[in-house]
This record gives sequence, structure tokens and C-alpha cells, in this order.
Amino acid sequence: MPHNEVRKDYLLDRWVVIATERSRRPTDFAKRDREQAKTTVCPMCPGNEHMTPPAVLVYLKKGNGIRKDRDKNGFRHKNWLVRCVPNLYPAFSPPEKENSKKSTLRRNDLAAAIGHHEVIIESPNHNEHPAVAKIPQLIHVINAYIDRLHALSVKKYVKYVSIFRNHGLEAGASLSHAHSQIIATPFVPKTVEEELRASKKFWKQNGKCIFCSIIEKEIDGPRLILENSHFVVFAPYASVNPMEFWIIPKKHEATLLGMPRIEVKTFAETLKTCLKGLKELINDPPYNYGFHLAASKAARNYYHWHLEVYPKLAIWAGFEKSTGIYINTVTPETAAESLRKTISA
Amino acid sequence: MPHNEVRKDYLLDRWVVIATERSRRPTDFAKRDREQAKTTVCPMCPGNEHMTPPAVLVYLKKGNGIRKDRDKNGFRHKNWLVRCVPNLYPAFSPPEKENSKKSTLRRNDLAAAIGHHEVIIESPNHNEHPAVAKIPQLIHVINAYIDRLHALSVKKYVKYVSIFRNHGLEAGASLSHAHSQIIATPFVPKTVEEELRASKKFWKQNGKCIFCSIIEKEIDGPRLILENSHFVVFAPYASVNPMEFWIIPKKHEATLLGMPRIEVKTFAETLKTCLKGLKELINDPPYNYGFHLAASKAARNYYHWHLEVYPKLAIWAGFEKSTGIYINTVTPETAAESLRKTISA
Repeated sequence: MPHNEVRKDYLLDRWVVIATERSRRPTDFAKRDREQAKTTVCPMCPGNEHMTPPAVLVYLKKGNGIRKDRDKNGFRHKNWLVRCVPNLYPAFSPPEKENSKKSTLRRNDLAAAIGHHEVIIESPNHNEHPAVAKIPQLIHVINAYIDRLHALSVKKYVKYVSIFRNHGLEAGASLSHAHSQIIATPFVPKTVEEELRASKKFWKQNGKCIFCSIIEKEIDGPRLILENSHFVVFAPYASVNPMEFWIIPKKHEATLLGMPRIEVKTFAETLKTCLKGLKELINDPPYNYGFHLAASKAARNYYHWHLEVYPKLAIWAGFEKSTGIYINTVTPETAAESLRKTISA
Repeated sequence: MPHNEVRKDYLLDRWVVIATERSRRPTDFAKRDREQAKTTVCPMCPGNEHMTPPAVLVYLKKGNGIRKDRDKNGFRHKNWLVRCVPNLYPAFSPPEKENSKKSTLRRNDLAAAIGHHEVIIESPNHNEHPAVAKIPQLIHVINAYIDRLHALSVKKYVKYVSIFRNHGLEAGASLSHAHSQIIATPFVPKTVEEELRASKKFWKQNGKCIFCSIIEKEIDGPRLILENSHFVVFAPYASVNPMEFWIIPKKHEATLLGMPRIEVKTFAETLKTCLKGLKELINDPPYNYGFHLAASKAARNYYHWHLEVYPKLAIWAGFEKSTGIYINTVTPETAAESLRKTISA
């Protein structure tokens, strides 16, 4: 009897069982009806600006991003394209004194959850999700990510800024209006730290970036989904999630800050193309995506930013939660092939 | 503004945000209708034994456990109490040669998924889940865990045996008949290895078992749920899951093997009491549980077996999946108090 494969992650000490033997077809996951978040009044729709805390960033139809919630007459801006507001139920919240240098650590097993938790309302149009967004609108969203990343990462008490998106109720989006979230933490998250450690080690041993090596390897292989002037998209070798894919810049860059305009545009196009392909292939599945960025300037040589997209098609159950071993029922090669075909169709 | 707490796990380098500020009430999670797995014909119900692979262990109404699927007349046993069968879609499957010493590692990032994947059918009664099971029946289930643990852990290619249970569709139980699962792996899983490493370090530094210390600390504290002659149940300090609790033996034991009969009975009673309490408090929520056992004899001094129960009341979304930081909206103190009250009511 042939066996499934157990594959190790590129960087992490994490093994995943790839069900090569009884692999499922991507279309097996298509559901007719997806449960939707129920909203009677959407606090993110235009006209309901008073339902959110004051905006920390607003892009207007005319003019650049502004950091004020209200116009010169004291009214909340109405003609906005993107609004960024603090989360009403923040996981992390700002310190009392902005310049506090006091450590957030209270004991070796207890810290204060100091930081920021923001929501980026991606469009005045309730359903303008990236898979269907107009490219100029999606460019605004990416620019808002970069703006907030810049504003938050200069704060003394912030050690990492996580930018992520939950799509669909099953993937944790409790509101259905198109939105992303940003959480700034007072420490470097475990997963990021493990990636930084592994990529630093590779760089010291090989004198090159591990992600640049991964791109070289995947660009000609069976897991490639898309390649264009600036980005490569592929299904990672040891994907933990069925249909998982990564979008990574060809040029070695550690973070989003300072991304040239042309690259922002290509990134918006790439993101839309891939999420549109996923939506068409599996009937708008729930998903999560998260940016992986270098946590410090020191990491710029060995870390390489990328976006990881995790369709939510499986449930992590007792085995995964107790052991840290994951089981993926779609091989990354199958995932890549089906997405590639859908995108180019 | 007061802040949420960030707490570190007893052993792992894992931090969790505990929403002390806007904590949810356990009863907020009660749903009227839970989605059920749809089964037309249940392959685990009596009479359908032919729908499963041959049993590797059967407990009959008369007699002890037997390892044969069929009786002396060649018929499948009918009057069973517990049946253990190989999983039809195994993640890990046995090697071609039972005594193969060949490493399963094919490359440093690829191994064959050699091992076992079994299903323990807990009762002939479709709905005899632990929260409602008769104690003698639940004792059979625990004994079946121990029997299979023993049978699988002596195999040369097995390095760890994970025993777990998924309850409810949302927690990954695709069949609703009461059942548990066992997966034997050719390597020690990441989470277990991290726990072993941390507990070994503590033992070397302090000359005692870290779990024994945790019991001492929790037994008089606000996170205690239940204490009886042999076991302590508490909500761990840095619970990742809302309403999470652990059942741990007072006596220092590294694994389930050799558990005295009286302790098996007390364990069955403790498990039932806690799961019944959870079911009553939150209207039969989905959950996962998993045993954490020492992986080798060498660990018997510093490791201490226990059962971790994870109610499935939250969705791990983009932030958790990208960073490895978890957000728990119910404080362990609240979880313990409400379970304690429900159980003693």
C-alpha cells in the first residue's frame, strides 16, 4: 500500500501530512450556500460613520489620506473611499502615555496587551471584496495598509504589525462589509520569530535569502500558479491548508514600506486575479490572508515579505490541536494546477 | 483605559491574549441549533459492521477484548460493546513489512506517512457520547484507549500515539456516532516535543515535575473546576480556547499504561461529569479532546499525562494563523467558575 507524504515546511519545524493517496478535488469543497454574517444595519456602510470610533485615516474622493476623522466644520467625512478606524473590541489597545517606555511585561508569564487594533474599511460599497474590486479601489486598500504600517511601526512600544483579512463567516469575519484588520503588538509574534530565526540561519549558512531560493525553485515547478513582472504566486510545498497560496515579490524586499507605485498596482492586480480564481473555482470560499513582514531593519537582508492566503476548507480538530501535525487533503500540486487553469481560462 | 492581559503558557513559548476587559459570558456561546453531521446509514451502528474495515479490537458483552474481527464460525461479532477499526481514509498507514526498521525519512523535508490511524466506536448506541454515557460503558472506552495505546506503542516504527476525540460537526466529527480516534506517528509531534523539552528543563532545574507544581498551584486557586480522589480538573492559566479545561491525575504518572482499575473508573466519572457540565452550560457545544502522554520511558520522571479538552467556540482567523498569537474571549477564571457551578448544581 502506498503511503501519504509527510512534508516539512520551508522554514518552520512543522510537518504536514499531504494526502497524496486519497487527495480531494478542489471542486469537492464548493458549497451551494455559504452562511453569511447577519447584519441589519452595517456600521461600515456610508452614512453610519457615527457607529465606529473616530477614524485614524480617511482617503477621500478628492485629496490624499488624512488622519482626521472630521472636516474643518466638525462633520465626519462623507465622501470617503477607505476608512481606517480603531476596533470597537480591541485585542490590543494603546498605552496611557504615548511615549511610555515602560515594559509591558508585568511578570515572566504576564504582559499588558498594549498596542493597536484597527479595521480598514476597504470600500464604501458593502461587497467590494478584493476578488471583485475595481483595481483603483484595491490600490487604495494596499496604500492604506502601507500608511498604517508606517504610522504604527514607528511607535516605541510596537514590535510588530500584523495586517490580515478574514473573508466569510466561517473564516471569522463577523461583519460582511469588505474590511481588513491590523494588529500592532508589543512583542514579535511566535510564528514571525520562528521564520526570522530560520531565515537568518539560512542566510548565514548560504549567503542568500531563503525566500529568493524558494522563488527560484518554485518558479519552474508544478506548484506555480502565476508569474508576472513583479510577483510570483505558488502553492507552498508543505501547505497546511487545502488550496493555500503565497504571493511573493520577485525583488528582495523585507517589508511593504517604500513599495513603488507600479508595484502596488501589480500587487493589487495579482491579489485580485488569485482571489477571483479561488472564488470561481470553489464558489466564494471563506479564507484568511496575512502579510508576513520583517520585524526590524536588521532582518532586511535575510527576510522577504510575502502574503499567505489560507482558504478555510478544513477543520483543525483534536489531532492537529494536540500534536501540531496538520493533515492537508489537497496536494499543493493539485491546488496549483486547478488555480492556474481557472485563472488562465 | 485598562488593558487585556497577555499570558504565557505553562510550558510552551506561546502567548495568548485573555480578554479580561470585554470578556464574554460562557452562556453567550449557547446555540439553539447545532449543525449535525448528516448520515443516512451509519457505518458504526450495529448491523453495519461490514461497512468498516476488519476490527483490530472488539469488546464483547461476554469476555474480554479480542483482536479478531470474526468469530470462530467466520462471522463478524455482533454483540459488541466497543469496536476499534482502521480508519477508511487513514492519514498514516502501516509499513509493508511489520518489522521494517527502514527510516520513514526520504529526504530532510519528506517522509512516508507510516503509522496507524484507527477509530474507536465507543458504543453500539449511536448517541452514547461521554457526557451521557453509562459509566461501565465509558470504562470500556478508556480501557480500549489503553489497549490500543499498548498495542501500537510497542511497534518499532511508532514514536508517538495520539488519542483524541472530535465532537460535533463544527469540531471536525464527520460522523455523529460516538467515536474517538487514534493516530500512531513515526515521529514525536512538534507540540509534544516542545512540552517534553520544557518539562525536562524544569525537572533538571527544580528537581520536580512541572505538572506536579501546576497542580499544587491550581488546586487552591480560582481556576479549579473539580477535585476528587485521583484527579484535578482546572482551566489552564493561559487557555487558548474559551472554556478549555485539563483533567490531570494527582499521582505523577507519565502515561496511561498500567493505570489501576479504580483510577480508570474515577477517570471515566470525572470525564463524564465535566463534559456533562459543559453540555448543560453551553447546549452541547462541539469540542475536541486529546491525551498528552510521554513519548518514551526516559520521560517518565519529568512528564505527567493529562487530557486537554478544547470546546470549539471560537474561530482561529487571519491573526492567529499568521502570528501564532491567540485571542481568548473568556477568562479561564470565568470558565472555571461557571463550570464549577454547573457541575455542583
